[in-house]
Amino acid sequence: MKESWSSVDTLETNFRPLVVIELAKGTKEETIEWFTKRIVDKKTNGGAQLLIKPLVTENGGENIYLVGASHLRLLLGAENVGLVKECNDNSMRAFTYSSRKTFKDFADDNQNFLTMSECQYIIKHELENLRAKDEKMIPGYPQAKLYPGKSIVRRLLTNGILVQIFPLHDREELKKLRHTWYGQVKIGYQPLDEIRCYFGETIALYFGFLEYFTFALIPMAVIGIPYYVFAWEDYDKYVMFATFNLLWSTVILEVWKRICAVMTYRWGTLLMKRQFEEPRPGFHGVLGINPVTGREEPVYSSIKRQLRIYLVSVPFVCLCLYFSLYVMMIYFDLEQWALDYHEENKSNFSSLMLYVPSIIYAVVIEIMNRIYRYAAEFLTSWENHRLESSYQNHLILKVLVFNFLNCFASLFYIAFVLFDMKLLRQSLATLLITSQILNQFAESLLPYWLQKRYMKKMKERMHSLKMDTDLSLVEQVNSEKEMGTYFGTFDDYLELFLQFGYVSLFSCVYPLAAVFAVLNNITEIYSDALKMCRVYKRPFAEPTANIGVWQLAFETMSVISVVTNCILIGMSPQVNALFPDSKMDLILTVALVEHLLLAIKFVMAFVIPDKPRDIQIKLAKLEFESLEALKQQSCLPE
Amino acid sequence: MKESWSSVDTLETNFRPLVVIELAKGTKEETIEWFTKRIVDKKTNGGAQLLIKPLVTENGGENIYLVGASHLRLLLGAENVGLVKECNDNSMRAFTYSSRKTFKDFADDNQNFLTMSECQYIIKHELENLRAKDEKMIPGYPQAKLYPGKSIVRRLLTNGILVQIFPLHDREELKKLRHTWYGQVKIGYQPLDEIRCYFGETIALYFGFLEYFTFALIPMAVIGIPYYVFAWEDYDKYVMFATFNLLWSTVILEVWKRICAVMTYRWGTLLMKRQFEEPRPGFHGVLGINPVTGREEPVYSSIKRQLRIYLVSVPFVCLCLYFSLYVMMIYFDLEQWALDYHEENKSNFSSLMLYVPSIIYAVVIEIMNRIYRYAAEFLTSWENHRLESSYQNHLILKVLVFNFLNCFASLFYIAFVLFDMKLLRQSLATLLITSQILNQFAESLLPYWLQKRYMKKMKERMHSLKMDTDLSLVEQVNSEKEMGTYFGTFDDYLELFLQFGYVSLFSCVYPLAAVFAVLNNITEIYSDALKMCRVYKRPFAEPTANIGVWQLAFETMSVISVVTNCILIGMSPQVNALFPDSKMDLILTVALVEHLLLAIKFVMAFVIPDKPRDIQIKLAKLEFESLEALKQQSCLPE
Repeated sequence: MKESWSSVDTLETNFRPLVVIELAKGTKEETIEWFTKRIVDKKTNGGAQLLIKPLVTENGGENIYLVGASHLRLLLGAENVGLVKECNDNSMRAFTYSSRKTFKDFADDNQNFLTMSECQYIIKHELENLRAKDEKMIPGYPQAKLYPGKSIVRRLLTNGILVQIFPLHDREELKKLRHTWYGQVKIGYQPLDEIRCYFGETIALYFGFLEYFTFALIPMAVIGIPYYVFAWEDYDKYVMFATFNLLWSTVILEVWKRICAVMTYRWGTLLMKRQFEEPRPGFHGVLGINPVTGREEPVYSSIKRQLRIYLVSVPFVCLCLYFSLYVMMIYFDLEQWALDYHEENKSNFSSLMLYVPSIIYAVVIEIMNRIYRYAAEFLTSWENHRLESSYQNHLILKVLVFNFLNCFASLFYIAFVLFDMKLLRQSLATLLITSQILNQFAESLLPYWLQKRYMKKMKERMHSLKMDTDLSLVEQVNSEKEMGTYFGTFDDYLELFLQFGYVSLFSCVYPLAAVFAVLNNITEIYSDALKMCRVYKRPFAEPTANIGVWQLAFETMSVISVVTNCILIGMSPQVNALFPDSKMDLILTVALVEHLLLAIKFVMAFVIPDKPRDIQIKLAKLEFESLEALKQQSCLPE
Repeated sequence: MKESWSSVDTLETNFRPLVVIELAKGTKEETIEWFTKRIVDKKTNGGAQLLIKPLVTENGGENIYLVGASHLRLLLGAENVGLVKECNDNSMRAFTYSSRKTFKDFADDNQNFLTMSECQYIIKHELENLRAKDEKMIPGYPQAKLYPGKSIVRRLLTNGILVQIFPLHDREELKKLRHTWYGQVKIGYQPLDEIRCYFGETIALYFGFLEYFTFALIPMAVIGIPYYVFAWEDYDKYVMFATFNLLWSTVILEVWKRICAVMTYRWGTLLMKRQFEEPRPGFHGVLGINPVTGREEPVYSSIKRQLRIYLVSVPFVCLCLYFSLYVMMIYFDLEQWALDYHEENKSNFSSLMLYVPSIIYAVVIEIMNRIYRYAAEFLTSWENHRLESSYQNHLILKVLVFNFLNCFASLFYIAFVLFDMKLLRQSLATLLITSQILNQFAESLLPYWLQKRYMKKMKERMHSLKMDTDLSLVEQVNSEKEMGTYFGTFDDYLELFLQFGYVSLFSCVYPLAAVFAVLNNITEIYSDALKMCRVYKRPFAEPTANIGVWQLAFETMSVISVVTNCILIGMSPQVNALFPDSKMDLILTVALVEHLLLAIKFVMAFVIPDKPRDIQIKLAKLEFESLEALKQQSCLPE
């Protein structure tokens, strides 16, 4: 750094609050003093060199602090987290302070070079990387042990001294975003770049995927409608529809990778270097030496973890799967009972009763999914994974397996054991529609209503305050800290994943599924947008370059759907009629077609490049430049 | 570089010849002068800063030059190519001259810090990177155009001015290597580390794979023997054998990745950064701007290439495939004719005649494979790929598809159209054994014999010279330059790939195939070793971290073999007897088992980590260190 650093002063006049820290009520004075000192302290002294101010409320003593940073500090932080920004020559490069002049829109007095969410991400990163030096414990709390290198904020969080850290909303920006996002009645794309600026890449990518997926479903939906309208039962047409669906689903997943690469290149995250992963906050163990870093940190035996996984988690998951199948059998009993009742009574009421078991089952499935989710979270956290990514992978695997079986077992049973296509269609429709309605309600409308009610109460308490407009900072912080926390895109992706299952697994039986999926997703975009903007606290931006393990999950689902659709078509009476003499020929033909489709799928996935050509060239260019730079360094002098 | 560079002088007294350059007879004096000047010239003047000496022979004027380099120059070159060596703390790190003291066995006077093959690789790299500055053509050859940045050596090669560049053998080292490798009669591992030191990583990895693959086949062979000895026809046993085979082949391919990672970590190539890929020598086009480097270089329209591929190459390959099938049908006619003949005559001679068609067919297959290989090479080079890697991929794809069909079509036909298991077994045995014998002959023994004959002639000409012992440098160069050139491991891997096909595709019909494969591979190791040491010129070392596209090819073969084996077992009369009532149940069961096996394969491939845990930790450690180093750079000062 060739700059003079006296300019990084810790008491700038134009303090802009970015992040809120809420400490527990009754936190000891010495702890607060020590913690704020560490935050303000110079980097060389092991501090974070940020700015902090207590929030002074009327009744006082709420232990809420506002964190900000000087412009220069933020720029250095941006270099530290490896932020990638656009240069003057339109290429994307990792930001460094020394090369700051080459970046687009950079000016020493331009405070908007970094977006607010980037600034908040930087502050979060700096706070989390505030590490213990020689402290053995948190002052005032002897039970909260520290060791050199331990993240102080994480220890404060796990000990409950720190209640929460969250970034502040920018009321002005949010209002603008809300307006362009869902404020007008118009057909068009979502403002993904604005969403990314405000909420960060992970959330923008989810909305991007949701939008893309909805568009991708439209062809399926359009082709599906005439099947319903004209009640086509011609199996030639069904075979065509299913084949189209299977190849289409491969194409859309491959094309998504390309679109995703284009988007994340523009956002800079495609080029962002992966940061070294620290242990997750909940990880605990005996102090030992990490073989990778050579640092002292908690170590937990991998064998113990494996034992916990294989002796407790796996049996538990199996038990849950068994229970889910058991519930399914009860559903079929109910179904039979409803059918008998209808046979006996033949009334309007009884024919309506036919749908009741499916609806009840759909509700039960949703409830079981949610309960299981908590159990899976508890178990996975008890497995004590060291890294957040490993925790996430184990959690996702547990949840996916159970949700897949829970949602689709009954459909598989109906299709391949009962051979009842009519019931399959009816069940599929009921399950799909009920789960969509429940989800929309539980995910967005319910929290929104609760939030509204709470805000109303608060307004009454605070008297005559208007939301959105002239709320003072104190009021804004107070209202936001009570909002719910958004726990990431997991549930949203899971919902899409199950929807994809409903659409593709049995697509040749119920072509209308895609139509419902499209309709649901259009409202889903709005309700999710509402949820993000009005229900939850602003989440910290999370840079990400792709949708990660979900890509694999969707691809696996599309492979399974090839198998199910081929079997369904093979079982249809129309196809059976084509092979009047020999069932064997039929089955062999179906098996051959299935293998062929699978082979085409794999070849297609292999042949379609994951990144568009121009992105490939841009990446190659960057790589070439860095190699050239290395060569320059090691060039032979005279 | 903080060193004083006056020590890099170009006329060191202890000149050690490493690489031989042979120019065409009658090359113009001015060209030679210019070329040698460029090689000797300082880096800052755009030279390679190497040492060069003409080889003075009795009759003189052979235009052969020896290239060497000073010790210091080689160390700097090692840094330039990104060589990874072992440090004093047993970790592997990229060599840099400034940190040279931290590397194991480094001493300023230790000339053996770099192995001879590493030195030769460095010299080759430096020669190839000798680039034109402002020359418009090669002096003396106006038709040999140059443009700034064009590799001079490549232009000289494509214009036939440069006949060849090859590294010299080290007679002493080679003798030692030959002794430990195949000189003694002993059971044991090959000296892979020594092979790597002498021939480089690509060749060592091939021998490593050959050895590993042979060991991996032993369990299959051992289990297969009793089937032959006791003539077991019990299909329970066959099912068990096939299932074992299928899972085993997945396991061995996954475990190979781990073993490969361990080996290449030890050799440093796992950590070596990929160099930026230059256009391949044969690539031509109109001068244009490369979008990646921004340099002027030949550009060839991607659309033209696509047209050549889809309008010429693909139809040609299809035609060849059709021709191969046509030849196959002739074989079946011959087979029928031999059978008829045997039926009529019933003599010893006629029963011997039964094997003749298969043997002829096996020979024809080998001949067709070889002719097709030339055609594929010609076509792929005509497609004018810019990068060597893309050329290789297209060539491998062409060759693999044809060889697969050519070798296995008749077996598929016999198995799934004729349903003749006896003929399948007989054909498989004849094809496998004949192709193995032919390969061993054509690949090693024939060249060895030719080489022997040539050496004898040369010895007669040169009078009373003993090979291996006290050949002078002149004689060594003269004998080596006439040796054949080793064109890489392609054919060797292809042979193993086809062998893997013979062993795994129909393993449940002919368990003895693995036994023959093991026997062949043991002799193959020796004949390939002989070929490398005595028949061919020493090849340049090629650093590589894995067996590349062959891993994928082997994995694809193992997937296909799951399908074929399941069908074969399903077709067997014994399994058919288990389902006396319904063919349908049989087929459904077979299909279910097949899908289950495929699913297990994919899960296994996913679950088994590609790198052993200790290598993972070492890699993570290096990554952590480089991240830490970056952080240090951008740390906030006071």
